[in-house]
Amino acid sequence: MNNFSATYTDQYQLSMAQVYFKNGHREHTAIFDYYFRKLPFKGGYAIFSGLEDLLEIVSKLRFSESDLEFLKQQGFEDEFLEYLADFKFQGTIYSVQEGDVVFPTRPILQVEGNIIEAQIIETILLNLLNFQTLIATKASRIRLVAGDATLLDFGLRRAQATGGYFASRAAVIGGFDGTSNVMAGKDFDIPVSGTMAHSFIQSYDDELTAFRDFAEGRPDGCVLLVDTYNTLRSGVPNAIKVAKEMEKKGQKLLAIRLDSGDLSYFAKESRKMLDEAGLDYVKIAASNQLDEYVIKSLLEQQAPIDVFGVGTNLVTGDPEGALDGVYKLAWSNGKPRIKISESIVKITLPHKKQVFRIKDENGKCIGADAIGLFEQERIAEMFHPFEPYKSMNLENFQQEPLLQKVMANGKVLIKKRSLEEISAYSMSRLAELPIEYKRFNNPHIYKIGISAKLREEREKLIQASKNKL
Amino acid sequence: MNNFSATYTDQYQLSMAQVYFKNGHREHTAIFDYYFRKLPFKGGYAIFSGLEDLLEIVSKLRFSESDLEFLKQQGFEDEFLEYLADFKFQGTIYSVQEGDVVFPTRPILQVEGNIIEAQIIETILLNLLNFQTLIATKASRIRLVAGDATLLDFGLRRAQATGGYFASRAAVIGGFDGTSNVMAGKDFDIPVSGTMAHSFIQSYDDELTAFRDFAEGRPDGCVLLVDTYNTLRSGVPNAIKVAKEMEKKGQKLLAIRLDSGDLSYFAKESRKMLDEAGLDYVKIAASNQLDEYVIKSLLEQQAPIDVFGVGTNLVTGDPEGALDGVYKLAWSNGKPRIKISESIVKITLPHKKQVFRIKDENGKCIGADAIGLFEQERIAEMFHPFEPYKSMNLENFQQEPLLQKVMANGKVLIKKRSLEEISAYSMSRLAELPIEYKRFNNPHIYKIGISAKLREEREKLIQASKNKL
Repeated sequence: MNNFSATYTDQYQLSMAQVYFKNGHREHTAIFDYYFRKLPFKGGYAIFSGLEDLLEIVSKLRFSESDLEFLKQQGFEDEFLEYLADFKFQGTIYSVQEGDVVFPTRPILQVEGNIIEAQIIETILLNLLNFQTLIATKASRIRLVAGDATLLDFGLRRAQATGGYFASRAAVIGGFDGTSNVMAGKDFDIPVSGTMAHSFIQSYDDELTAFRDFAEGRPDGCVLLVDTYNTLRSGVPNAIKVAKEMEKKGQKLLAIRLDSGDLSYFAKESRKMLDEAGLDYVKIAASNQLDEYVIKSLLEQQAPIDVFGVGTNLVTGDPEGALDGVYKLAWSNGKPRIKISESIVKITLPHKKQVFRIKDENGKCIGADAIGLFEQERIAEMFHPFEPYKSMNLENFQQEPLLQKVMANGKVLIKKRSLEEISAYSMSRLAELPIEYKRFNNPHIYKIGISAKLREEREKLIQASKNKL
Repeated sequence: MNNFSATYTDQYQLSMAQVYFKNGHREHTAIFDYYFRKLPFKGGYAIFSGLEDLLEIVSKLRFSESDLEFLKQQGFEDEFLEYLADFKFQGTIYSVQEGDVVFPTRPILQVEGNIIEAQIIETILLNLLNFQTLIATKASRIRLVAGDATLLDFGLRRAQATGGYFASRAAVIGGFDGTSNVMAGKDFDIPVSGTMAHSFIQSYDDELTAFRDFAEGRPDGCVLLVDTYNTLRSGVPNAIKVAKEMEKKGQKLLAIRLDSGDLSYFAKESRKMLDEAGLDYVKIAASNQLDEYVIKSLLEQQAPIDVFGVGTNLVTGDPEGALDGVYKLAWSNGKPRIKISESIVKITLPHKKQVFRIKDENGKCIGADAIGLFEQERIAEMFHPFEPYKSMNLENFQQEPLLQKVMANGKVLIKKRSLEEISAYSMSRLAELPIEYKRFNNPHIYKIGISAKLREEREKLIQASKNKL
């Protein structure tokens, strides 16, 4: 699903592009920042996800013959369409690493290119990064409470159509172990797993025969769903019978799955029954409208659940819907640019920039990122972006630059990493973050500051804009 | 985006399929019902959407060579993989018409096929129908309050990745007029529209030049965004200047767009200024986190807004995330099937079925659908599905059968309709529904009943299941 037409964009990008094309702005260099304003889930951090997909897709974006015909019908002009026929993105992208912890206001990614190409990719960039970052963050919250339980994405059937494909990928980056989604498993190299549906058992006249047939026909990684008729009186006893029969053939039942009722109670009772039958190796999997809060509660009740299958709430990022990521112009036509707004938090940051993670002398994250001009190598003092009297001296701190060149002249510069690597990196970055930023209720607020130079540049532009009115 | 691999499914469908394949069940006919349990948005109805996409996709589902290789690595057996190599869906599908109003509990669609094919398409069926139905319903609610204002989908950038593509389609079925999404516009024949972004204006040194260039470069359907610097002191006056300049060239400015601040106030003030300048034909478009409640409020305040651009809340179905549609076995292996549950509303309905819309002698919808066995031509009395003492005599009512054969032997039987036709049909069905079902707060509950015969059949199966335990 990584072949996209360049028409995966909003029409206004092309309208603006035609105007730039005609008025001689087409070669103007533009710089856009990608960032979001509000952390999802009332949480204290987000996990950046979607970068590798974005780079791969952007490097291949083209307009086909039929796309150009369609655009002609939309009133676009011939000369411009000829230009689009040769379109490919040839700009440069700076980005934090995929999997890193990220925070509001500060650029996560910067696009530098001619203003037409930078504008055309805006929509797909926002579309992919906003969604995957939302889902990786949700997955990370679930991983935080789940300890070392196995976490599986079961969400495709309730996903927002094909969004589910990318959700499966982002879930792994956030800490999930596998997915039921075969296509995503194949394309993204994610472990795929699956059990059985109630319909399988219903299609038989009795549960025991259904279990036996399943164990016979798919013995590896066999998981039996035990709640179709009655979990403790029928499902678990039948599963135990089959597990014993499997033992005689040298096979092992992997797990039973609970999908309804009080999961804590049923897990405890089932565990007892399995253990008493000498089946302490048989795991217990649970599913049914799980999220980070339900899993936390189940584990606090010491429910002996080894595997959680999470569906809707994971793949739709419930209750959020969307991350509010935006793409804002910081430079064009040889000048820094700013968007003024009556709401101060919506005023943008001009210029090409670098972002530094601030660490103490031992390299320990102190909970702050500072934004400077791109050419700044260190930031001496950082200022609150909207409250002028708050500042912090950074001279004695380590400063890790976060934005790296990941694409140049339209070519991907970074080596493709496996999802396992990205996820491990994500875990390591999350581990550096003090625990106060990870709690669910009123997490500590991560500090974002801007350098004196950036602040000064922004002030100048705000004043100039005021003077014009 | 309508070419899907058959691996767009949950792994357990294939695990079950392998077992059916091996144990001789592969030719058993199965019937599955698609329905949902809970109306989204606390509303009184839903708009069924996604059918044509589903049929087209299902008729083309295949496993590729590389899919089969991947499945081999997943431990599937050679003989079964050979079977999958020739897989294509050859079953029959009965469905209500796309765009119809639909309600909980009653089947919206039935799949009849061999149990393997019926199981393999479950995931994609739920994935596409759940999402499009959610979005068409959201769009319909927005249309209900928007009167004859133009409604545009601006959501792609915040959509759940490629889900946005299908959201644009469903939005039109629910009553939207157009989309900003070029690819969806092209593939689904949706009017595409777009304006300009703040970045366009920022990339110029002044707003007026930006407006002039835009009007020059893209005069047809020109919409000027007026809130970049100051709506009433800069944006609207500059737009008026440009509109006057356009008049001299025989052109007409289509609209201005407001994207921030108090939309009601700014719309009224802008309207006054435009009218005073003799530009009463210039429309006012508004965007910025709109949904059915905000639009209702704006129109109640008599804000003179002609065009609403709706983004995130439309394409993600906020605050819902997902429609809870399910796919339940009703028949297999020559017998009716039922899923028992401790929660009575989760007990399924066995047998192949037909659903009737109940109308009075004048053909007026009375707010009830009745479910009978497939061979029943009329239903004499309908019973509440879960409350045995509630019933209603239907002898004097008209009964419109809703499930029609839309696919047979894997071939689509219905003629493709334009989205305009589907949307018009949807409007006509919604118009038949009494207004009490359309209000947002505590809407009247649409009645769902089952026939005496279906009830009897269900009772028999519940008893048989009890006796087994």
